[in-house]
Order: sequence, then structure tokens, then C-alpha cells
Amino acid sequence: MEKVRLSDTLIMDRIIHGHWRLMDWKMTREELLHFTEEVMDLGITTVDTADIYGGFSCEEAFGDALKLKKGLREKLTIVTKCGIVFPCENRPQYETHHYDNSRKHIIQSAERSLKNFGTDYLDLLLIHRPSPFMDPAEVSEAFRQLYDSGKVRNFGVSNYESTKFEMLSSYTEYPLVTNQVEISPLHLDVFQDGTMDHLMTRGLYPMAWSPMAGGELFTGDSQRVKNVRSTLLSIGEKYGETRLDTLAFAFLTSHPGKILPIVGSGKIDRIKNAMDALKIQFTQEEWLSVYKASIGKNLP
Amino acid sequence: MEKVRLSDTLIMDRIIHGHWRLMDWKMTREELLHFTEEVMDLGITTVDTADIYGGFSCEEAFGDALKLKKGLREKLTIVTKCGIVFPCENRPQYETHHYDNSRKHIIQSAERSLKNFGTDYLDLLLIHRPSPFMDPAEVSEAFRQLYDSGKVRNFGVSNYESTKFEMLSSYTEYPLVTNQVEISPLHLDVFQDGTMDHLMTRGLYPMAWSPMAGGELFTGDSQRVKNVRSTLLSIGEKYGETRLDTLAFAFLTSHPGKILPIVGSGKIDRIKNAMDALKIQFTQEEWLSVYKASIGKNLP
Amino acid sequence: MEKVRLSDTLIMDRIIHGHWRLMDWKMTREELLHFTEEVMDLGITTVDTADIYGGFSCEEAFGDALKLKKGLREKLTIVTKCGIVFPCENRPQYETHHYDNSRKHIIQSAERSLKNFGTDYLDLLLIHRPSPFMDPAEVSEAFRQLYDSGKVRNFGVSNYESTKFEMLSSYTEYPLVTNQVEISPLHLDVFQDGTMDHLMTRGLYPMAWSPMAGGELFTGDSQRVKNVRSTLLSIGEKYGETRLDTLAFAFLTSHPGKILPIVGSGKIDRIKNAMDALKIQFTQEEWLSVYKASIGKNLP
Repeated sequence: MEKVRLSDTLIMDRIIHGHWRLMDWKMTREELLHFTEEVMDLGITTVDTADIYGGFSCEEAFGDALKLKKGLREKLTIVTKCGIVFPCENRPQYETHHYDNSRKHIIQSAERSLKNFGTDYLDLLLIHRPSPFMDPAEVSEAFRQLYDSGKVRNFGVSNYESTKFEMLSSYTEYPLVTNQVEISPLHLDVFQDGTMDHLMTRGLYPMAWSPMAGGELFTGDSQRVKNVRSTLLSIGEKYGETRLDTLAFAFLTSHPGKILPIVGSGKIDRIKNAMDALKIQFTQEEWLSVYKASIGKNLP
Repeated sequence: MEKVRLSDTLIMDRIIHGHWRLMDWKMTREELLHFTEEVMDLGITTVDTADIYGGFSCEEAFGDALKLKKGLREKLTIVTKCGIVFPCENRPQYETHHYDNSRKHIIQSAERSLKNFGTDYLDLLLIHRPSPFMDPAEVSEAFRQLYDSGKVRNFGVSNYESTKFEMLSSYTEYPLVTNQVEISPLHLDVFQDGTMDHLMTRGLYPMAWSPMAGGELFTGDSQRVKNVRSTLLSIGEKYGETRLDTLAFAFLTSHPGKILPIVGSGKIDRIKNAMDALKIQFTQEEWLSVYKASIGKNLP
Repeated sequence: MEKVRLSDTLIMDRIIHGHWRLMDWKMTREELLHFTEEVMDLGITTVDTADIYGGFSCEEAFGDALKLKKGLREKLTIVTKCGIVFPCENRPQYETHHYDNSRKHIIQSAERSLKNFGTDYLDLLLIHRPSPFMDPAEVSEAFRQLYDSGKVRNFGVSNYESTKFEMLSSYTEYPLVTNQVEISPLHLDVFQDGTMDHLMTRGLYPMAWSPMAGGELFTGDSQRVKNVRSTLLSIGEKYGETRLDTLAFAFLTSHPGKILPIVGSGKIDRIKNAMDALKIQFTQEEWLSVYKASIGKNLP
């Protein structure tokens, strides 16, 4: 598996395993351990999750599996997130869905993540959403405390506009090592709103969530989705590749911005499909033909 | 009254008194003097006005009051603006409403402001609106002449996009110390278009005009305004605060970007209501609940 | 003719002659030589073209004329572009209209331009369109090879958003000396989306294509176009100028951003009309009146 260096203390896989829907996989802790080891055997040791996934339950479920095997956590690069809260069974104390970017909440959430995973450090902690009410001094102070105590080794953001990225960067002494954003053949915003330009200017690599557009790429029956699907499959013919997910991942990994897609599946074949994307490099014409099919018009 | 330092030579109040509607107050010069002293006794000594307010008449009306009492002006921090012109009784020479950001106009307007106030310096002069035809070299030269002659001590802008702010900044040797923009619970653009991020990145504090949305917050009967109003009042219950204006000002002053709201009232009670906002600090959840009520949807 | 310095090795005319529609002029090579010399006698020695103009035929047609007269090319400043490809008689190998910003294509296109013109250097090469798939490292490497071999003396871009301009700038060791963009009284985007602010911040001068909006300024019969036209002509009365094109060019050349308009005509009178714009300097009120007529509303 191709590796990418994001900082002195952070090397990530080019394809990352995502736990967003881990609870849907309905695995026992033993099954999850086994699956995790299968994924690791394929070469993927970077895991992306978040405090809120599964209604604040995925981190703990994964931690329960990790605890079955001593030394496993050290072989993994764990990315998690904080900053969103909402009322649910595991968080009855909240009344509304909102963001909490206070120093106190960031630290408490990170510490709870550590406990969930049964570890004493996180490789990367992301602020999950940009908040119009964020106090960058508080976030920076939380980062400092978490870094100094060794609890978090690297920091980043997710879904950030470039202006907010620059704003937080100007307040914190720790580099923001990535911006995890939505990218798929059906979700091209980052190529149009300056986000990708900004990351490339900074020499940063985005992590990409929902690279299959939450499944819509497979199941959508709008003309737009059909066009994107047929364009991808038609390109695949040249490479002898008929797997739609492999081709969609190749759309992401072919981009010069070194996009790190997250494959959020509990099936080992899906993980393999994603990894095989790295064998394909779209030409300029091929990549742009997918782009044009998705925006529904020609380029000027 | 909390004070905020904007430059070596500029300290402003956290809440600023605004003269936009001074002519509507129908005060004699003696009444205006008395009212000004009442406001000053409350601790507010920063006054925001503009050459154009009241059809180019507010500055002079205020100056007439100031001239009644020797030494009063020196106790005040006076902010005024220039760059907009339009035909009216006081400016029959103009044919159309337009912007004039020429060196000559900026200097003439500032000098007329000095005369209006009966003073020999302005604490802060703002370019009132970004013009697509602004020549930054001319503006910069006007600033230099006004600064060197001691006529203006600080410069800033109003209603500027961040790109134009950066552009003008790159041409002038004087720091732009603020950007006066519209902010209210009903006007959230600055949180969405990067303006607030830009100011926070630069470590600058915005002055906020129309913090009550020109009264719409009180009188609007759309569902949106009703929702914002009831959300503010519901938060107020927690703090034992029933005054809508106090709560709306608290929405602004609670923000970490250190917003300096302008209270544009001729009634001393309204000024007090604004000042009492500083006793309330909204939580992240409270602030975002107002934000959500205003945008009419949940956050992602 | 006023000259503008864009780099140590690049001086351009304030008004540039454009070859976009050269094939429509239906000139023999002798006629084109004669016309080119006429334009040069007027003082315009900067020519703007592109590999794709005339279906990949304009460069060669111009080169055929140049080859008739030894020493002529050295008196000219030649600007051309690359990066767009599409299927046509001269490029049957392409299947779709797309962008190719690969190192290989940029170098090949520039070398073919050299051959077309019968020269061994280009004064300025522009990347024709921003591509969402551009690899800035490849573009930069192409620039390096073309510069080191003496084949291209200066580089720039066309139609670039400021974020992509900054991104490419951060990768290449050669300054991007201009951004050629669409500007006309009917096309004001650059004044509204930050592009002009960005160029002025960087101290760069835009080349302006379609300054007459592709002729729509003359022929359009919408109320908007009529308003813009009558506003221009009404301003012209003050200057004793009745030529609409002269007035539209004056709208561009009056702007403090030092816009370099491209006049794309094969008629010498049209060139003279454009040049005469430099005798007129719109006032702030005049310029903004055209702007307001075009956006169809007053300024705030």
C-alpha cells in the first residue's frame, strides 16, 4: 500500500479504512477484530472514525475489538474527530444538535476517544465541522494541552472552507495536516470553490469522505448519475476494469492533489476494489470526461 | 465600559454610539449636548458617524452641540466615513448617487468633517463602501496626506469584501484598523462569506452596523423573524433577561471575533439596553440556536 | 502607444492586437503582412493569439505572413496560449474537447507555435483555461524546460480564478506575469468575484478579451445592452466622442487596474478607434454610471 507522509509523526495509507457505518456491519467484537486484521493484511493500517459515528458508539465498539489483541493498536494509525454533539441514547444530556468547539469539550472528547480505543494517544484529531462560533484561541489551547500531554500527535480539520482553515491556522502553533472533505464523481465542490486549490497551495492532501456519494453512484437513477456511471465504465474498458467502485476510486486517486479516499465498507472485497484503483491512472481526457458528465456540460 | 485597542493611537468602546439617524432624534443643539454627555456618563465615548448621514447634515449638527462645551471633543473618539456622494439639498452639485474614492475627494471630505466637528483631528476615517473603480494609490496618497498633516489618526474601511481589503492594504502604508460591516441576528453574511474569518485571521475587530437589522428584529412578522425573536427571548429566560435588544446585542458581543456593535439610538434607555448585553455570554449551543433559527435550517 | 512593463523581458502595448478571428478576415499572406505592418505603424506591436484559434490554424497563417519579411518577428511581442484541445480538421487525433495541461502537451504545443511563427522564442505563453485536473508540478516542469531552452521568455494564465492562480504560482519558479480574462461593459465578473482585486494586490495587469462582448455591445437589443450603450454614448458627448467602441475601450483603459484590452479586428479603423480610447479618462461618476447600467441597479 502506498504511504503518504503528512507530518514528522504521521504517515497514512493512500486508501484509508472508514468506520462511519461500523455499527451497520453487525459484527461481534471477535468478528471486528478478524476483519480489522484482514484489512491490515491488505496493507491498510489507517482507520478513520469520529466520536459521533454510530450515535457515539463506533469508537468504543472498535476499541473493544482492539483490546482483544495486545499490540494491535500500535500497528494502526487512528484518526478521529470531535466538535459535533446531539441528543441520543449515548448523550441524553444534550438538547439540540450543535457544535461545541470549546477547549473543554475538545479535550473531554479526545480523552473519551482514548478511553474508547484503550490507548494513550491519537495519531490525528480533526475538528469535525467549521462552526461560525468557533473561538480559535480556545481550539488552539485545547490542541496545546492535548499535544503537550502526548494524547494527540497531530491535528486537522474536516469540511472546512479555506478561509476558516487559514483563520484557525493563524491561531494555532500546530500545523493543520489535512482537511477531510467530501469528494466523489458526484460531489465536485472542492474543485470549484477553491478548496482543492487551497490545499494544493499549502501542499496538503485531503482525506475524502463518501467517495461513492453514499452509494448514490451505484443506485442513483437520475440521468446525471447514469451518465457518470457509464462514463466511468466506458473508461474502464480501456483498462480491463469493470468494477464501478474501483473506477470511482481511480477518479479520486488519479487527481494530482493526492486525494486520500476513505473506503467505509465492512466487506473485504470492497476494500480490495478500492485498493485496485491505485493501479489505474486516468488521462487528462478521461478524468475530465467524468467531470463533464457530472457537471452536465462541456468545459469552456 | 469595556475598551478595545485597535492601534497605538486608537482605543474604542466595546459598544459604540451611532449617529446614522441623529436627525430623526429632533434634538436642539443643547438637547444633543445633554444627550451626548448622558451617553458619555454611561461610559461610551466612541461616536460613529459619516459625512453622508442625514443628507450630509449629521456631522455638522453634532459639531454644533460639541462647540457648546469646550474640551468635550477631546474626551470623544470620533469615527466618520467618506466616499459616497449623491444629490441632495446639501450637495446640489452632484447628479447621481456614486462613489468618489479620489485623493481629492477623500481629503476634501475629511477636511469638511473636521470643520463640521470643530476639531483638528479625526480618530478614525473609514472608506464607506468598496468601489469597483477605486484607485488604491489615490486612496493611499490621501491617507498619507491626512496622516502627515495630523488630520486623521487612523484609517479603515466599511462594507469591504476581504479581497478588496487585502488589495487596499497592499497599497497603503497605514494599517486598516477595522472593517465596519452589517451584522445582526438577521444578517449573518459575514459568518458565511469569509469576512469574519478574514478579520479574525488579521486579528481585527469589526464594527457592526444595524445590529437590530434596522428595527426589523422588533417589527418583522415573517416566520423567520418570529423564530429568531422567540429563540433570543427563550435564551433570555435563562439569564433573567427579557429585553430583546439586549439579547440581540449579546448575540453579537458573545462572538469570539470581538464584534463592536453600534447602537444608533437617541434614547438613553436603548443605550443602556445595549450595554447590558456585555453581562451575558451566550454558550455555543445558545449562539448556534439563534444562527439556526435565522438561516432556517439545521447545521450539517 | 503607451507601453507597459510586465517583467524584465516583457514590455507590452497598452492596447493589444488580437488574432482570435484572423481566419474571418480572409486575407492572403501578403494582405496579412501589409495589415500587420499597418497596425505596427500605429504603434501596436503586441499580438495575442492561441494555438486553437481558427481551429488550430491562425498561428500558422500569421507565421506565413511573418516569413515574408525578414526581421519583422523581432519587432513584435508575441503572446500565445496552450492547454485546450478538441477534434477538428487540424487535430483529427482528438476525440473530445478537453484540457491537456500535461508537461508533454505544453512543451509540444509551444514548440509547434514556434514552428508556426517561424521563430525560436515566444514572448509570453499562457495556460488557456484553468483545469480542475491540472498538475502544477507538470506545468512548472514544462515552464522550466521551455524557459531554459530559451523557447519561452515569460509565462502567464488566462481565465484563472485567483485561487488557482495562487496555487500554480506556489509551484512554479517563474512569475505568472498576467491573467487574460474577459472584461467588457457587459462582462463585469472580474470586478465582482475578487479577480481584479487579486491582480491589483499582486501588482499585475490583466489582458482583457472580448472588450466589446463579442459584438453584443453593438448589436444587442436587450434593455440592458441598450442602457449600457446609451450611457456610454451620453458620456461621449462630454468628450466629443461618438464612437461606441472607443468609449467601451475607454471604460476599460480608464480603470486604475491598468487593463490591457485586446482589439480583435482586421480593420485598421477599428484599431484606431480602440487606440483613441487612451485619450479619454472617465471620471469616477462616469465609470460607475456604466457599471450601474450594466448591473441594472444602483450601488448601495
